[in-house]
Amino acid sequence: MQKYPSGLLENAVNEFARLPGVGMRTALRFALNVLKWSKEEAIVFANAVNDLRSKVNYCRICHNICDTEICNICADTERDASTVCVVENIRDVMAIEGTGQFHGLYHVLGGIISPMDGMGPSDLNIDSLVKRAESGEAKEIILALSTTMEGDTTNFYIFRKLEHTNVKISIIARGISVGDEIEYADEITLGRAIINRTEFLETGKTI
Amino acid sequence: MQKYPSGLLENAVNEFARLPGVGMRTALRFALNVLKWSKEEAIVFANAVNDLRSKVNYCRICHNICDTEICNICADTERDASTVCVVENIRDVMAIEGTGQFHGLYHVLGGIISPMDGMGPSDLNIDSLVKRAESGEAKEIILALSTTMEGDTTNFYIFRKLEHTNVKISIIARGISVGDEIEYADEITLGRAIINRTEFLETGKTI
Repeated sequence: MQKYPSGLLENAVNEFARLPGVGMRTALRFALNVLKWSKEEAIVFANAVNDLRSKVNYCRICHNICDTEICNICADTERDASTVCVVENIRDVMAIEGTGQFHGLYHVLGGIISPMDGMGPSDLNIDSLVKRAESGEAKEIILALSTTMEGDTTNFYIFRKLEHTNVKISIIARGISVGDEIEYADEITLGRAIINRTEFLETGKTI
Repeated sequence: MQKYPSGLLENAVNEFARLPGVGMRTALRFALNVLKWSKEEAIVFANAVNDLRSKVNYCRICHNICDTEICNICADTERDASTVCVVENIRDVMAIEGTGQFHGLYHVLGGIISPMDGMGPSDLNIDSLVKRAESGEAKEIILALSTTMEGDTTNFYIFRKLEHTNVKISIIARGISVGDEIEYADEITLGRAIINRTEFLETGKTI
């Protein structure tokens, strides 16, 4: 006795189960939900997924996902082209844009150096970053990678690669998260927060 | 400034967010995962979803999902055609099949009477159930619907519809779940479990 009453259902379940964090039960729930849609709705869904992969385009300058040759951020002349923020992926760009605090440009590495996952420097968009620094357009490069061993390794690799240029290299602040209590912060974070202390302004803001 | 850097990405996120229990954050995670697939993988995924909806077929007898005119369960001559288990949906068939305790046939209602959701008796496969009972092939009909007000209403409606036939109507046992502690059971369940007590067999099993 097969587990699924229909091969079509089984195929759809197996495909949904390829999505991250989706097990067989959730995949079945998704597939049974598709059965409630109209045929047209299913076609729209299928085309949206297929088009995303087949027609996707990445910005020639910063490697962010976009629909044109150059992304909206790089094409925006009101942004500060002299500051480039280096991030791991598209999601990080969206997260930083969401803060509304950064008005420079981005550089999406497309990953992080991680020998365990088979990701080496040649798999990342590092050469194009070096060219952006050498061209003289970028004056400051902000490293905004994850605070992990892989992130630190990648930061150090990029630092060595950019050493010969005149570009200023900075790194986003590591410290206590807003809303966190001091007593629960880990020692390394707390230690860095003390070393990297900033001047107290009367408004209570450090920005 | 638009939230998504690409219209293709936005479309795919909006489509993924139509799946049950998937919010915009998870939908974005799914869409970014699709970007890591090969183009062929994305086509296979899209086709599986589209085919499921466009080519789906329901068993002429029991309305279970299947790839042929009559489903594997109804077509299986080794199964007891005189016992028909009435369930709400395909998932319930899979759940009961998973127990390995039932060897009769099924009847999938395709829902449950729920005026709040606009589901009336005419939206369900009840007429074909009455015909199966009238044909004389089904000797016993087991009602296996949810223990909710809607389930009870549907049970009662079906009972009235089948009263004129000679078919025996039974209902699955309501009682304490295996592994549950008596003191935490609700009063109605515990009361029913006492009323519907079964003979104690030496093996400790009631089946």
